[in-house]
This record gives sequence, C-alpha cells and structure tokens, in this order.
Amino acid sequence: MELVTRALAGNRYALARLISLIENDGPDAHAALQAVYPHTGRAHIVGITGAPGTGKSTLVNELAKHWRSRQITVGIVAVDPTSPFSGGALLGDRVRMHDLAGDPGVFIRSMATRGSLGGLARATGDVVKVLDAAGFAVVLVETVGAGQAEVDIARAAHTVVLVEAPGLGDEVQALKAGLLEIADVLVVNKADRPGAAQTALALEMAVGRYAANPGERTEGLWQPPILQTVALNGTGVAEVLEAIERHRLYLQTTGLWAERERARVRAELLNVLQQEALRHILTRIGEQHLHRLIERIVARELDPCSAAYSLLSELLHERGLK
Amino acid sequence: MELVTRALAGNRYALARLISLIENDGPDAHAALQAVYPHTGRAHIVGITGAPGTGKSTLVNELAKHWRSRQITVGIVAVDPTSPFSGGALLGDRVRMHDLAGDPGVFIRSMATRGSLGGLARATGDVVKVLDAAGFAVVLVETVGAGQAEVDIARAAHTVVLVEAPGLGDEVQALKAGLLEIADVLVVNKADRPGAAQTALALEMAVGRYAANPGERTEGLWQPPILQTVALNGTGVAEVLEAIERHRLYLQTTGLWAERERARVRAELLNVLQQEALRHILTRIGEQHLHRLIERIVARELDPCSAAYSLLSELLHERGLK
Repeated sequence: MELVTRALAGNRYALARLISLIENDGPDAHAALQAVYPHTGRAHIVGITGAPGTGKSTLVNELAKHWRSRQITVGIVAVDPTSPFSGGALLGDRVRMHDLAGDPGVFIRSMATRGSLGGLARATGDVVKVLDAAGFAVVLVETVGAGQAEVDIARAAHTVVLVEAPGLGDEVQALKAGLLEIADVLVVNKADRPGAAQTALALEMAVGRYAANPGERTEGLWQPPILQTVALNGTGVAEVLEAIERHRLYLQTTGLWAERERARVRAELLNVLQQEALRHILTRIGEQHLHRLIERIVARELDPCSAAYSLLSELLHERGLK
Repeated sequence: MELVTRALAGNRYALARLISLIENDGPDAHAALQAVYPHTGRAHIVGITGAPGTGKSTLVNELAKHWRSRQITVGIVAVDPTSPFSGGALLGDRVRMHDLAGDPGVFIRSMATRGSLGGLARATGDVVKVLDAAGFAVVLVETVGAGQAEVDIARAAHTVVLVEAPGLGDEVQALKAGLLEIADVLVVNKADRPGAAQTALALEMAVGRYAANPGERTEGLWQPPILQTVALNGTGVAEVLEAIERHRLYLQTTGLWAERERARVRAELLNVLQQEALRHILTRIGEQHLHRLIERIVARELDPCSAAYSLLSELLHERGLK
C-alpha cells in the first residue's frame, strides 16, 4: 500500500491521511492496518491520565519538549476532550502548544469522541499503532481519568502516569476510579498551590495501602514514585521523565514488558472480535428484523437479553430468519 | 421467581439482593431480568451528568428531597466514582446524604467500575430497570460527564441534566465532550461563586449556536433552559425540578417519549448482542486457541483485526477449530 509506505518513510502528510483512513474505518482500513502492524512494537507507549483541571496537557507538552531535547521523537494522541491538543484549548494553551508545532520529531493527533461499544478504544489503539510503526520512540496517550473507556485506554499503555492536583476536592477520586491501581508514576502537578503536600501524602498513604496488601498488586517490585511538578514552568518535569524511563527499563529487565503487551493484545482482540461479531450479526439479520425486535421489546413482550439470545441461536443454528 | 416478587412488592432487602444478583451476572440473572422486564416502562429516567467538582451529587440529593416532599418516590443510581452516593464521600457529603437515609421512598445504588466492553452500561441499565419495576417514579442516574461510556449512559435517560460550575476552567468542555448536544436542562451550580454569569452566558451562546443550526438538533421545539443553583443551600433546586417535569410533559405530549425509548432499547440490544456474541465465541474457541492467537499477534505474525476476521469466519462456517 503506497500510502503506508510513504507514511512510514516519514511523510507527515501521508501519515495524517493514513491515520484518517484507519480512523474512518472504511474499506481500506483493514488492509492499511495489516500493512502497518508488522512494523509496530518498538514504541514506548505512555498513558497520561487525570481529572480535568490537573494540568496534564501542560505536563504532556513539557514532557514532549524534554524528550525532544534528547533527540527522541514523540507522538501524542489526545483522547481527552478537554485537552488543548484535541482542540479545546483556551488561548494560553494554544500558545504553549506552539512550542511543539513545526517540529518534525513530534506528531499530535486528537481522537474524536466516538460511538460507544468499544469504538474509541479501538480507534485509539490503531492510531498508536500507526505512530509506533512510523518510528516515534515514545507515544503519549492523554486521557481524562474519569470514564471507564478512557481508563481502559490508559491501562493499555506500557507505563501509566496519573496526574493529580491539589484543591480539586476529593482526594480518593483516583483511588475510587480504579486509577491508582494502574498507575506506575504518580504526579502531583500545580505543586506550588496550597495543599500539594497533603495531596502527595494522601497518595502515599493510598499507595502504601496497596503495598501492605500484596494480593492487589502483582507487580510488587515497582514502587510507583510520587513526584511533584509545576508543569507550567517546567519544575520537576525532568524527574517525571526519568521515572518513566526507569519504568521502561524495569519492564524490560523483568519481562513484564512482554506481559503487558500480551494483556493489551488480548483486550484488543476481544474488543475487535465483539465489534466485528456485532457487525456481522447486523448484516445478517437486516434492519427490518432488528426493527421488529425493538418494537417487541418496547412493547415489553420480550426483554433485551432474551431477544439477544434468541437472535444468536437463530444465527448459529442456521435456521434462517422469519 | 420469589425474590423478584418480594422485591417488586416493596421489600428493600429483597430489592438489594435482586440488584446484586443481576449485577453479578450469575446464572439466575437472566431469569430475574425476564421476570422484571414486563413491569418496567413507568419511571421517568433522569440522567444527571457533569465534571467532577460541579456539585452534581449535592444537586441530586436536593432534587431527591424535593420530589420526596411531593410524595414522589426516587431511585438513585450513582455511576460516578466521585459521587458520595457511590461511597467516595468526604465526611460532609456523608452527613448530607443522611437526609435521605431511612426514607423508604428512596433507594440508592452505586455501580462498581466494571470491565470494559459495555459492561458498565449494561449493568446500569439493568439496575435502572429493577428500580423502575419496583415502582420508583423517578430514577436519577448520576454519571461523571467526562467519559465516553458514562456519556452514553446519560444519553439513555429520558431527560438529561448537565451540571456546570463556574471557575473549573475550560467552559467549552461540555461542548467538546458532546454533552451539550444531549442536554435537556442546563444547570450552573455553585452560582454564588464568581464567574457564574459568564458560565451561564457561555452556555447560552453555545446553545444558541445549536438553535441557529437546526440540522444539529432534531427535537427543535424544546429549548434547554439554563438555570442557576446553589445546591448546597437549596437555591434554585425547585426550578430545576420544574424544568425536569416540564421536559417529561414535553416528551409525552410530542411522542418523543416513545422515540427516546426506542433509541434506548436499540442501543441496549446492540450492546447485549455484542457481549453475548463475544461470550459465545470465547466458549466455542476455548482458552488455548485464544492464547495461541494472542502469541501470534504479539509476534507480529498476524494483526488483531485479521485474527478476529479469521476466527469469526471459522466459527460461522463450522469448519471446526484446529
């Protein structure tokens, strides 16, 4: 596929078009992904997640600048609808982003909010693959750490950075959302604000709780560091980058890199499987039959679960449809 | 099913057990849902969504109190991991919640964060069904308006209330997340704080944009009201309740009630279908075969999409598995 060849050779225009082609899930998307896939597996995928208002986009921006100063290329995928990278920036954010604009060693892509049913996770994973195959050494995936789908997307990274900020209210938020369990590096951003030390302490206690309860944390050798940053002026960002790099080395030397890869592939395969199974089912049964089923469910003659079961068994037993 | 009979007759203990049974998706869950389903369809399902820190839990609490003062029963389903209803409360929140505790006309249930692949949406829909069948006249579904899955859950309600607050940063957040398009009632909570008027104005302009562009809003007769509240002291809450009730009447008199019902049933059926299809596929292929496929994908011999396609075609053509 010529588009793939040009994109992987470093043509940015081809890269953008390739990503759109794959994102739009058109007839050529599968062929493009097939061509891209053998070239994947080299990038360090880093998920950066946190609630709106923690300043994680600024941190992403600063991290990218630090990697660039070391000649390391960076792809950024913004799944967070509040991220300046995804187009929702105030003027100040836009100006900050210009630090990265025009640098051929950086590629930024935002994900449109997608229909449910696993669409967002799948599209994000595919864009990460393209950036990986195109040779970006680090791929940062920024997600808002509040939704189930977005947490799952972050979880698919090799290294997960959880960003907190003081004064956003409930400290246990991250814990409750299941975020702390998946975080490899913890960052208290906006650390020049009152309450930063308390936030760090709350995180430390929460992490300590896990350490005291090894059943909950299987990768017991890595102690997630808790770092303080003021991303706006760059304070502490180098330490976050070091922690991310240390985590990569840790994964690679312990064999956990391959284990995380396997977990990601498994989740992705199941997601694609169920989407494709649904697509197949809908094609087979046709809109009319589906419509009739919906009317019966609306009339309470049938519940959705029974409807699904009987549809599946009809299809599987090749009885044909009435 | 005796448990269903007792739960629907008003036994709270049976109701809690029934919900757990359905949530845990065990062998009896399907039978229980079948028994529950014919009794559904009476409740007014109200989605309440907004970013963390907007005070939507306090608003939910106050709305519930207002309905109760009119002898209307209220079920609350907290999908938001930051909600006090779901167990993440600071002391103050817990105390506030005691307003509702012990009132037999209120039932509160929080949803655990679930594995992905549509599990959370399905479980939430099922709990809403149980509360509907048990006779709660209003079912409030509180979600954090930042994640794709959570937005989809809110979208499934008859009436969607979007809660904003001044000073949380980027005003267009809700717009970007696709929330404004689905909101029927807009609330600026914490309206005693600086910036409330600007937040309301920003919402008004955003909503006006939609009105000027009728293609984007098909249900053009309803103008989402923009209301200001201080939920902490109850200011403006009665007006929100009135707006929600007016929206219900609007849906019922225009026939849109049935249309929303149909859209919800459709989304639910597709979600259940794809989950059950996946479950069936996994049972058929077995863990070993799945494991071998994953290893081939990890080794880059095969991409996930091609793996899914070939698995599906193997299953559908009954060729048996190697």
